[in-house]
Amino acid sequence: MPVGLRAPETLLPVAGVRWGTACAAIRQSERDDVALLECSPGTQVASVFTQNRFVAAPVRLAHDHLEAQSPRALVINSGCANAGTGENGYHDAQLICQEVAKQLNVAPEQVLPFSTGVIGERLPVDRMVAGVRQCSERLRADGWLLAAHAIMTTDTVPKGVSVQTILGGQVVTITGIAKGSGMICPDMATMLAYIATDASVTRSVLQACLEQAMAQSFNRITIDGDTSTNDACVILATGAVSQPSITTVDHPEYPEFADALTSVAKTLAQAIVRDAEGATKFVELEVTGGASEADCLRVAHTIAHSPLVKTAFYASDPNWGRLLAAVGRSRVPNLDIRKVGIRINNQAVVAGGEVAPTYTEALGQSAMANEELLVSVDLGVGDEQAKIWTSDLSTDYVRINAEYRT
Amino acid sequence: MPVGLRAPETLLPVAGVRWGTACAAIRQSERDDVALLECSPGTQVASVFTQNRFVAAPVRLAHDHLEAQSPRALVINSGCANAGTGENGYHDAQLICQEVAKQLNVAPEQVLPFSTGVIGERLPVDRMVAGVRQCSERLRADGWLLAAHAIMTTDTVPKGVSVQTILGGQVVTITGIAKGSGMICPDMATMLAYIATDASVTRSVLQACLEQAMAQSFNRITIDGDTSTNDACVILATGAVSQPSITTVDHPEYPEFADALTSVAKTLAQAIVRDAEGATKFVELEVTGGASEADCLRVAHTIAHSPLVKTAFYASDPNWGRLLAAVGRSRVPNLDIRKVGIRINNQAVVAGGEVAPTYTEALGQSAMANEELLVSVDLGVGDEQAKIWTSDLSTDYVRINAEYRT
Repeated sequence: MPVGLRAPETLLPVAGVRWGTACAAIRQSERDDVALLECSPGTQVASVFTQNRFVAAPVRLAHDHLEAQSPRALVINSGCANAGTGENGYHDAQLICQEVAKQLNVAPEQVLPFSTGVIGERLPVDRMVAGVRQCSERLRADGWLLAAHAIMTTDTVPKGVSVQTILGGQVVTITGIAKGSGMICPDMATMLAYIATDASVTRSVLQACLEQAMAQSFNRITIDGDTSTNDACVILATGAVSQPSITTVDHPEYPEFADALTSVAKTLAQAIVRDAEGATKFVELEVTGGASEADCLRVAHTIAHSPLVKTAFYASDPNWGRLLAAVGRSRVPNLDIRKVGIRINNQAVVAGGEVAPTYTEALGQSAMANEELLVSVDLGVGDEQAKIWTSDLSTDYVRINAEYRT
Repeated sequence: MPVGLRAPETLLPVAGVRWGTACAAIRQSERDDVALLECSPGTQVASVFTQNRFVAAPVRLAHDHLEAQSPRALVINSGCANAGTGENGYHDAQLICQEVAKQLNVAPEQVLPFSTGVIGERLPVDRMVAGVRQCSERLRADGWLLAAHAIMTTDTVPKGVSVQTILGGQVVTITGIAKGSGMICPDMATMLAYIATDASVTRSVLQACLEQAMAQSFNRITIDGDTSTNDACVILATGAVSQPSITTVDHPEYPEFADALTSVAKTLAQAIVRDAEGATKFVELEVTGGASEADCLRVAHTIAHSPLVKTAFYASDPNWGRLLAAVGRSRVPNLDIRKVGIRINNQAVVAGGEVAPTYTEALGQSAMANEELLVSVDLGVGDEQAKIWTSDLSTDYVRINAEYRT
């Protein structure tokens, strides 16, 4: 069950963008599993991809296409990652791009392919081609929520958000969708996420802004420390709203746009954690008082990846010993455990490296009972800080991942 | 259920060493939870401790005592780690050492204290003192197996092994016991392990030999990536067998002794993995063809810490995509996924970064059905290799760690 997360009731269309979806019966025969996005000519596109060296075929092809031309379409399937499929898989992805190109009357290099699902199986190309044809007949401006559904794998709810802001006196919209609930530890990249805006922003600014937003959102979540082979995030700026184009990061409207984009990215990233496989808790981990942001992140990730801490979260057990043990093994230079303080939902638990004087087990259990946890660790040696989001480790996580694909 | 592991039927006494055990009812009232080791005067002692910066009180006190005098006794309790207890915990450990010293007529600084169990609770000093008195009345040369029982926490079987070898024409014995089944990722240290030999070996040689043995045994196992606050391994050489003393690592008998010690340490380390919390598989992970041993270890640990790989082991699912994804994100320089090969119990699964031509799902499932798995990853870029041992991630692991202490 997702933690504090519902399917979006509505997602705002973005002028210049249309989505179509269809069922190619890749793993299931009763749901849409292909989504096609078409964007208007002149749309600026920026993207980030997985840093995993085991890169899926569509990711390789998308890289190649991005170098060749400016994209006009994205085609996404769930149910099959087309990873570990070698040159055959690359060729399959090419065939699908060619079909999209034919349907939309663009060049194959203007189509970016994405896949998510099981690793090591071939795509059913014939059914995908038929699905792409159906998608192209169904393109619609209000197709975002359908697309959010079509890209789901083990997700239990579709994830999406829209924000509007004012740039140059005109209302611009940013809408994004994402999927992902396992194999989540984005590394300068993300799970599949697609964001579009009708604002006018140049490609280089869009890329810089996307990377900045990623650093505060998708790169700050972890469910299981596993980085996917297919992670990708794409942002499109159609320029349908012709406010004065944001052409540099020094543009006076850049901060406003960057804030709005970061807000969308954070909401999508947190939605992935809230819908983590088997999750019963949504945990915000805040590390303060570090000598550097990197130290704070290191401590935060060590805590977030500790199976013992995560099972304690699952048990609503205020097991501060496991938290402190994770801090202690994080290999941060100059760590002085006697200066470490820990609060759970603002309840002081550890002070000076041992149990806080005011702490009682009853207070700890009360704080842990919440399904939303804020765990604050103060290292007490500097002024830097960092924040990440994670989930608990439940028997359902094991069950889901033991049963998936078997 | 432990994987391929039974309680030792017998453990050989080591001349000069006696163990006594007693029940101090620290967490359970019907089992021994205190163990006392007494060694003869002149015994050489070497040790390694946890590298976790959050160090338990007894570990701090043991460090202090080791600097002051040569040890004559070890006192160990299970059920309470005496960690995160600050100066009070340090004082508690001192009181217990004082009682041991009084009973055995040695200096308090000649007593090394060890604790294992729940973090953040105080020791019941009165009951511990009474337990120590009982232990001292029960000292016996054949007390090793009783001691192996007394130091258990979530262990399901006691762990111990004896080997004999010939040094300088005389039979010498090495016997060791260990405990541990969770919070296991030793970092230049180990869980609690106590090894004794009647051979004559000087302290500095013993220390070097212990560190060498650790590097091939306890530092090569991981269950959950969590490094304990109380890890310690101690080796005692009583010198009761007066073969020509091994005084340098260049001594002709050193390799024989080092091999025997490494063999004991490996057996104990692997026993910990075989009895890992919730384990249903014992996995040997072998990485070959690396540019350096460090690269091979990095890949091996990335695989061993992947919850997705570990749940696939649990499901007996030949999910090579998850293995390859873990290799891909291991951040090893010059990794070329197209050169990576993977074998499971000698069944070729991946070749050249994709599914091996001879592989079938039936063959993979057959290989994975075994409860002992040898997973071999060849990086194909060099001649270095490394081997580690790990377990799977089961719903029982989560259940045990969610229920423990709640």
